[in-house]
Amino acid sequence: MPQGQPAVVPDDGLTTRQRRNRPLVLVHTGPGKGKSTAAFGLALRAWNQGWPVGVFQFVKSAKWRVGEENALRVLGASGEGGSVAWHKMGEGWSWIQRPAGADESGQESNEAKAREGWEQVKRDLAAETYRLYVLDEFTYPMHWGWIDTDEVVSVLRERPGMQHVVITGRNAPEPLRDHADLVTEMAKVRHPMDSGQKGQRGIEW
Amino acid sequence: MPQGQPAVVPDDGLTTRQRRNRPLVLVHTGPGKGKSTAAFGLALRAWNQGWPVGVFQFVKSAKWRVGEENALRVLGASGEGGSVAWHKMGEGWSWIQRPAGADESGQESNEAKAREGWEQVKRDLAAETYRLYVLDEFTYPMHWGWIDTDEVVSVLRERPGMQHVVITGRNAPEPLRDHADLVTEMAKVRHPMDSGQKGQRGIEW
Repeated sequence: MPQGQPAVVPDDGLTTRQRRNRPLVLVHTGPGKGKSTAAFGLALRAWNQGWPVGVFQFVKSAKWRVGEENALRVLGASGEGGSVAWHKMGEGWSWIQRPAGADESGQESNEAKAREGWEQVKRDLAAETYRLYVLDEFTYPMHWGWIDTDEVVSVLRERPGMQHVVITGRNAPEPLRDHADLVTEMAKVRHPMDSGQKGQRGIEW
Repeated sequence: MPQGQPAVVPDDGLTTRQRRNRPLVLVHTGPGKGKSTAAFGLALRAWNQGWPVGVFQFVKSAKWRVGEENALRVLGASGEGGSVAWHKMGEGWSWIQRPAGADESGQESNEAKAREGWEQVKRDLAAETYRLYVLDEFTYPMHWGWIDTDEVVSVLRERPGMQHVVITGRNAPEPLRDHADLVTEMAKVRHPMDSGQKGQRGIEW
């Protein structure tokens, strides 16, 4: 049920309003479904508030967010709500200019691409470009050691203004969990694939 | 990471394609965040497939889905993707005609309203009105004994065609979990309210 009451009122000298409007770091992790889906659901709320939303997809998986991407593009262009910028690693980050005719495949390692994405997130956080950041599957480059988790936590801690950040993916590193305001663990209780069911259109992508 | 392989290939005589395109019952339950949010994320995928989507909100909570509702209304009216019909209990189900000037409050119990919503879901399932049903917070009327869980399972089992149903809310009854193709349990690892943080605009609604 929606409305909750805080379990404790902290002795931090802040008013309820100040505590209420606080930039949050949210982590959706665990082996179950719904980590990214719930992050894109949050993007709907942000859009509805008129906030600029930035999505950064950190894992190359062409078809897997096509529904969310199309929907958010239509919303961003609707003239209502906030703007939406969608960046993905798999097709080259949108801010990187490639020479015409250049073949992207094999030109740059996935590790370098993930790092370049993170560099852009840092620039956008410093410039306060967005009000909600969806860093989709961003736990993996941290888990794989491509991006330093301590640096991520430090950048998040120092970010200016009212910028909310949602990070999704399995195996969220411990320092990130410790820093987050909200960690939700999606557990798989039963999954169709357990009984031989494969992913299907409209449900899995 | 996105693509998965089935753990077992069932001996059911179906082809992969037949197994792939199967109407699913999905349940998002548990005490954590993201149950409904992930269901609305699924609605984006369904919309993107051009499917008619029906949302039924079973708990009266005026402000709590306003972001998702506005976004899905804009998408449904965009001329791209599928249609979206949004029904909610709190403002009277949309198909019920009330006499002009009638005051809804106290006229009908919440229990009766929840039952009326379920009757409409049954009619829509029989008519194959939608391809994806979001029965938001529908576990509560079952948990409270307002709607018979065995009847729900029986209606879901007998539903015709290719209709996917997502049911959200805490305390999903056991027979529903047993029947579902996918059960995801959202666990709360850490929540801002634990440290006195209240819900805020754009994040919680």
